[in-house]
Amino acid sequence: MPRAINRCITTSEIVRWWDSEIVMHIEIVCVGSELLIGFVNTNGAFVSEKLATIGLKVAREISVGDDSAELISVLEESLRRSDVVIVTGGLGPTFDDITRNVVSKVTGKKLVLNKEQLKILKDFFVNRNYKMSKTNEVQAYILDGAEIIPNNLGTAPGQILEVANKFIVLLPGPPRELKPMTENTVIPFLKERFEKGLLKVKVLHTTGMAESTIDEKIRKIIDTERELEGSEITFSILAKHTGVDLKILVSGDDEMIIDEAIQKLKKEFYDVLGDVIYGEDNQTLESVVGDILMKKRKTLAVAESCTGGLIAHRITNVAGSSLYFKQGVVSYSEMSKKKILDVKEETLNKFGAVSEQVALEMAEGVKANINADYGISTTGIAGPKSSSTGKPIGLAFISLVSNNKKIVKQFNFTGSRAEIKDKIATAALDILRKNII
Amino acid sequence: MPRAINRCITTSEIVRWWDSEIVMHIEIVCVGSELLIGFVNTNGAFVSEKLATIGLKVAREISVGDDSAELISVLEESLRRSDVVIVTGGLGPTFDDITRNVVSKVTGKKLVLNKEQLKILKDFFVNRNYKMSKTNEVQAYILDGAEIIPNNLGTAPGQILEVANKFIVLLPGPPRELKPMTENTVIPFLKERFEKGLLKVKVLHTTGMAESTIDEKIRKIIDTERELEGSEITFSILAKHTGVDLKILVSGDDEMIIDEAIQKLKKEFYDVLGDVIYGEDNQTLESVVGDILMKKRKTLAVAESCTGGLIAHRITNVAGSSLYFKQGVVSYSEMSKKKILDVKEETLNKFGAVSEQVALEMAEGVKANINADYGISTTGIAGPKSSSTGKPIGLAFISLVSNNKKIVKQFNFTGSRAEIKDKIATAALDILRKNII
Repeated sequence: MPRAINRCITTSEIVRWWDSEIVMHIEIVCVGSELLIGFVNTNGAFVSEKLATIGLKVAREISVGDDSAELISVLEESLRRSDVVIVTGGLGPTFDDITRNVVSKVTGKKLVLNKEQLKILKDFFVNRNYKMSKTNEVQAYILDGAEIIPNNLGTAPGQILEVANKFIVLLPGPPRELKPMTENTVIPFLKERFEKGLLKVKVLHTTGMAESTIDEKIRKIIDTERELEGSEITFSILAKHTGVDLKILVSGDDEMIIDEAIQKLKKEFYDVLGDVIYGEDNQTLESVVGDILMKKRKTLAVAESCTGGLIAHRITNVAGSSLYFKQGVVSYSEMSKKKILDVKEETLNKFGAVSEQVALEMAEGVKANINADYGISTTGIAGPKSSSTGKPIGLAFISLVSNNKKIVKQFNFTGSRAEIKDKIATAALDILRKNII
Repeated sequence: MPRAINRCITTSEIVRWWDSEIVMHIEIVCVGSELLIGFVNTNGAFVSEKLATIGLKVAREISVGDDSAELISVLEESLRRSDVVIVTGGLGPTFDDITRNVVSKVTGKKLVLNKEQLKILKDFFVNRNYKMSKTNEVQAYILDGAEIIPNNLGTAPGQILEVANKFIVLLPGPPRELKPMTENTVIPFLKERFEKGLLKVKVLHTTGMAESTIDEKIRKIIDTERELEGSEITFSILAKHTGVDLKILVSGDDEMIIDEAIQKLKKEFYDVLGDVIYGEDNQTLESVVGDILMKKRKTLAVAESCTGGLIAHRITNVAGSSLYFKQGVVSYSEMSKKKILDVKEETLNKFGAVSEQVALEMAEGVKANINADYGISTTGIAGPKSSSTGKPIGLAFISLVSNNKKIVKQFNFTGSRAEIKDKIATAALDILRKNII
């Protein structure tokens, strides 16, 4: 059954890594009233993922407002349960940035002015031609005995404090600052002290096959019990409206065993799914298409009606795409289709703009116009209104034309206007991927 | 000083609503191991925002894995502290969907097979031509005495259970199911019992002015103490790389007082910011531009180089855009610029593709080609490599041409390739907004 967008379902019945005993207890506490009135918090996800790469598992993530009493209670409880508590946010210069003071109160460690830090802070403002406000000085106060986590992109340094064999880590809220500080300082620090084992992740991206069908095909791989010395395997499926991502997570102490396991599992997935898998890890459909075009030294032109520029936008998101992408035309009027793409008046009249025939002529036209090796086109009804000729929302034709091939495919998609644009653009890029020779 | 993307900074020094005494204690508990290994959780943000609209404030949001012992401990603590605990996720049919059983254990309420619910479940599968698996039956078990929250889009019904004057609400994890269930059942239910007061939110979207400048200009409005019978005002600023959003939140018991306060504050912001504010609430820059074009019955054509189709994509995201948007050209090669846009060979040779002169000829060309009222163009260096001619990353020229106006503007943006595309597209749409007459 189709699943909701963006939900990760751990299909695995062996979720071994997760179920393994928690040796270390780690919690993340995110501070900020905005987090509790509708703002999505990405810091917890980022930090927990980074911790997972060194085998450290987060037991809880707690969001709490800029409320001293509530934060005191949260931190006291978290510190009681945990070996490491990572606190994000509330390190700004204003009175409602309460984290420094609350942590000082909870741990009994005084806040001490750090002269070196004050100088760094002053330089930060000088370098940017800003006048430092007196209120910023509080950001140079460090908990007694804490290590400083340098922040090159903002004014709030992070801190790592050890109290009674527990660590409390303070990080600023802006993701732009928090991310490098986590990667450059916090992870290496915790890795040195606590690394439990390695975790490696392999993501396989698919498109064009329903989640239920994929689930059936991979069920056997997932259900197979495996003996893997000291290692644990987790699988997860993330269904999006343009495709399904499969995640293989293998943890253990021996990097070679982990790498071998990932290669073996990956091969099993490819064996059952074949070219439904279009890429891995950070690859996108458009980067894969770009790699193929580049390798084969072929050029591309795109004629878009219903996708309205989205295909060109995705293609040009890839650095270096100007080497193979020659031209895009968004023909949002019949005149445009006739004038630039040489779609015939009689074809438009006889079959309508959303038709197999017009899709084909659009692809032929855009290819010829700029003398590209491949021309691809889309025409369809993105909604929310169906066409005046009664063609339904989601109906789309995609055509691909090269010197020796002409393809037209029909699709019937569902969803919002934005989702339908996404799905048609993805289907077009996927047809391209499978047909460049 | 520029702030990080997506961070909400409560600039207000009077954050009164937040600081007001918490009468009711509400917590959200999100269940799912995926939430603790890198998946961003949007359910908490959604539910907390909906609760805020009826004046209910969330004190904590806790994410916890599919781990019975940990969830038992979280729920026992949350129930001790709270009047309402909302639990999301873990209502699926498999063994690692633990929420139902854990809540039964913590509250001492038995899970009872609900025959009506079982029939609904069976019908759900029949209607979709799927065979219901035996394991799905657990989803028809309801906590003794609980109210059912209907779920039209999935198999897990929600539940509302009252125990010792406290409410525990169970919702499924997929956002697509959770959202309508929250809006249609949970919020009306809690509103009837607990409504603390009203909260209304007004968002003003700006672009083209630095956050620090905006902050300076609005400082006086934010710092003004206001006597507002029974009402509380909060401001927040959300800086994104394409602009700054200002949020006014007013809560209280009297809808008329709230509405008046919002109108008054809104006027004050417009007085100091003027047309830097391009829209409100759910409006986007492209929807505002579309509204103006529609109202004035003008048509548009777009010629994009560095933005690569993004402007056309944004314009065509607006339903009904085919009424004013005639054509887009993504000219990613000199040949394309010459052929469709009639940019002169000598202009390209003399000034280079990224120049004021080429931008102007592109806008003139695309306007003339399709006989539109307005032609707009972009040419620039999106990166990550600077041009072979030594022009820097982020340099861009945007031109707008109408029957009686010709504009070219130069910009120097910073950021990643995607950010620079975004910023140039936004600047182009903003020039359009300000110049359609």
